[in-house]
Amino acid sequence: MAVQTIDNTTEATPDTEPAFGPAVALSCRECGERVPLGPVFACQECFGPLEVAYDLPTGDPEALRKQIESGPANIWRYAPLLPVPADVVDKPNLNPGWTKLVKADNLARELGVTGGLHVKDDSGNPTHSFKDRVVAIALEAARTFGLKTLSCSSTGNLAGAVGAAAARAGFRSCVFIPHDLEAGKVVMAAVYGGELVGIEGNYDDVNRFCSELIGDPIGEDWGFVNVNLRPYYGEGSKTLAYEICEQLGWRLPDQIVIPIASGSQLTKIDKGLQELIKLGLVEEKPYKIYGAQAEGCSPVSAAFKAGHDVVRPVKPDTIAKSLAIGNPADGPYVLDIARRTGGAVEDVTDEQCVAAIKLLARTEGIFAETAGGVTVGVLKKLIETGQLDPALETVVLNTGDGLKTLDAVAPTTGPTAVIRPTLAAFREAGLA
Amino acid sequence: MAVQTIDNTTEATPDTEPAFGPAVALSCRECGERVPLGPVFACQECFGPLEVAYDLPTGDPEALRKQIESGPANIWRYAPLLPVPADVVDKPNLNPGWTKLVKADNLARELGVTGGLHVKDDSGNPTHSFKDRVVAIALEAARTFGLKTLSCSSTGNLAGAVGAAAARAGFRSCVFIPHDLEAGKVVMAAVYGGELVGIEGNYDDVNRFCSELIGDPIGEDWGFVNVNLRPYYGEGSKTLAYEICEQLGWRLPDQIVIPIASGSQLTKIDKGLQELIKLGLVEEKPYKIYGAQAEGCSPVSAAFKAGHDVVRPVKPDTIAKSLAIGNPADGPYVLDIARRTGGAVEDVTDEQCVAAIKLLARTEGIFAETAGGVTVGVLKKLIETGQLDPALETVVLNTGDGLKTLDAVAPTTGPTAVIRPTLAAFREAGLA
Ligand SMILES: Cc1ncc(COP(=O)(O)O)c(C=O)c1O
Ligand SMILES: Cc1ncc(COP(=O)(O)O)c(C=O)c1O
Ligand SMILES: [Zn+2]
Ligand SMILES: [Zn+2]
Repeated sequence: MAVQTIDNTTEATPDTEPAFGPAVALSCRECGERVPLGPVFACQECFGPLEVAYDLPTGDPEALRKQIESGPANIWRYAPLLPVPADVVDKPNLNPGWTKLVKADNLARELGVTGGLHVKDDSGNPTHSFKDRVVAIALEAARTFGLKTLSCSSTGNLAGAVGAAAARAGFRSCVFIPHDLEAGKVVMAAVYGGELVGIEGNYDDVNRFCSELIGDPIGEDWGFVNVNLRPYYGEGSKTLAYEICEQLGWRLPDQIVIPIASGSQLTKIDKGLQELIKLGLVEEKPYKIYGAQAEGCSPVSAAFKAGHDVVRPVKPDTIAKSLAIGNPADGPYVLDIARRTGGAVEDVTDEQCVAAIKLLARTEGIFAETAGGVTVGVLKKLIETGQLDPALETVVLNTGDGLKTLDAVAPTTGPTAVIRPTLAAFREAGLA
Repeated sequence: MAVQTIDNTTEATPDTEPAFGPAVALSCRECGERVPLGPVFACQECFGPLEVAYDLPTGDPEALRKQIESGPANIWRYAPLLPVPADVVDKPNLNPGWTKLVKADNLARELGVTGGLHVKDDSGNPTHSFKDRVVAIALEAARTFGLKTLSCSSTGNLAGAVGAAAARAGFRSCVFIPHDLEAGKVVMAAVYGGELVGIEGNYDDVNRFCSELIGDPIGEDWGFVNVNLRPYYGEGSKTLAYEICEQLGWRLPDQIVIPIASGSQLTKIDKGLQELIKLGLVEEKPYKIYGAQAEGCSPVSAAFKAGHDVVRPVKPDTIAKSLAIGNPADGPYVLDIARRTGGAVEDVTDEQCVAAIKLLARTEGIFAETAGGVTVGVLKKLIETGQLDPALETVVLNTGDGLKTLDAVAPTTGPTAVIRPTLAAFREAGLA
């Protein structure tokens, strides 16, 4: 923290610490144009997406590794690599991250993975999805920019994450969701006391409406975490890459399977891995990135299989509502990354998704939401179709929580029997 | 781990490490009778409950503190104080614990707490309740005793915790619940693939039935975590005490507010605090323990207020189903502890419970289940009635997750508005 001097010495007082830590600018992913850090998301030259550019710590990786390891058990241990002030840990936020990397030997056995299989279980976050990571970074940006209302378009998880984070940080919130989301996600989005607006339409309609709102005077001092704060928001997903590698003992895995909605998370996990290599925090080696979609909303998977560079929008129809983005903003970058690293993008049916939720629960005691079912289901399919090498070390992401999508499994998941409390009834039910 | 020697040297080979770590016996809480560690729970002399007795590490507390601090970010960092083998961390289990202690300044402001208020948020555990702690210890005992089926009577949370832990550890499970539990808890109990039996009756009927089952040959190699493994199970709650003090910087808080169902958790948190004092890990000072019940199931609170030493059973009728134990096994010990420490036992109505869930969500972004609503509601009432000193440092427990009791808040928690995706509709709805 900056030292506050009381008297007016003639000596130059040190500047206050930079509000964005090591971040120095926004730069266009397409044309490289640089603009100052601000609540903007599109390049004025070419309309490409803006990303956070850093002046990352050079020098001794060992010292940086030590600094990180002695940091808090949440994403702020990586503050030196994020667009946040050094004192971020003292601000009121939900401190997400540092979730478990579970060695999944039972699941590996069932799937025939011999090279080591890990589940990165992000259901352990404060609102039980990986969205707490991205919101935490966007919130700090909103604080710095003096924005007053925290907002988002959401397929469900983001709404809860924004509502909760805003409540704790003392922001007003107003979030937008498709009107037909799962009951659990609607209640969770509303319970933190912010405004919650259901939109008659699907996620892509919600998203379009939010872009309109930003252009209107109404949205002037609003921070839409995944629109005008998207450059900061995206950086939150890098922490998944950092944690996976640190939890493996500062090592890259060989293969990672990641769910895709807008594609932001997958893109930023790759960015995080690249940074770790550049910083010397992990040894460079090839790794493959795989993307997972639901068949009922698989525009990226379809483009991958067809060998296309562009993603053709679709109308989503799947129980995996958190992944139901028919027009994914980062789709083309996902295709790039999957191809460059030798990975793939695959999809599974709703039935396969439900089966995979149960498989993960039965083998590892982890209850995933539909997004996790899609990802584990895709892992299974990738192995069965020979696209993923079971002899290599693999990490699969569970990004959400089964309690939010109960309807997916409820019809086929219930008591074995309901009986009177007697031994006779127990025997009669065939349970003895 | 014990060193395995290959040749038969004449030197004495080291004994294998004790399977129960520092635990040396079970001892009767009433008459002090000692019996060997086994799957037993009642004293043969006086029918009093058996507790784990230890030969705890004496000597330098500083060294012990260092050992703990360099341990894993879960309850196994306290393995030297628990009835588990030293290599417990290598066994397949869910590794619960080391959940967040949240500095709750917003809630403190609303309640008028000036001495510092913290929420110990155990919804961050693997199945989102504190029950993962107690199950983890009971499971290790079941493993050592060679039991084959993991079981329990449950008000909901325990069922999910047992199902998940058993799945990962490779145990068969068969758990018993009242037939009318919340949908979320039923699905969560069933999804891990074990047997789930609904009992036509309330929790006390379920519990009675389980005691019968243990006496029957059917239950011979069954480990009921909260019946014949109850001495081990109970020790899991000590870790809440350990974590709270370590997270405060190895310091006792002044006041702790704890929910009561059977009373096990409250009793064992007190035991844990006493151990920390004895071991010199914290400085001794007075602390007060408060118990929280729902008015519709408040046998302990009623006894406390009436000045009784015994707890008269009641028929539960409350939305706080996880606390709905009408005949609480550890009720008398709770009364002892509340009185000895100068605390109290209080209760709140279902309405106050719901209001408290929303208060906690709105102020700190934490979505609690009804048990958490009861506990925060009781904190509020204790302050309003002058039973708890707002100028002292206070910890309140959230032991469960709001996603499991959606029905409690759903009727009064939903979208502010549902609109078409146009600015005009947004303005019309009065949201601009
Ligand atoms: C649980 C879950 N997993 C994954 C995703 C995918 O996120 P992205 O839009 O970054 O691809 C989402 C997005 O809502 C989500 O809710
Ligand atoms: C969420 C929650 N909190 C607290 C308790 C109280 O536990 P105990 O029986 O140890 O008093 C329970 C018991 O089921 C519970 O589920
Ligand atoms: Zn550009
Ligand atoms: Zn006895």
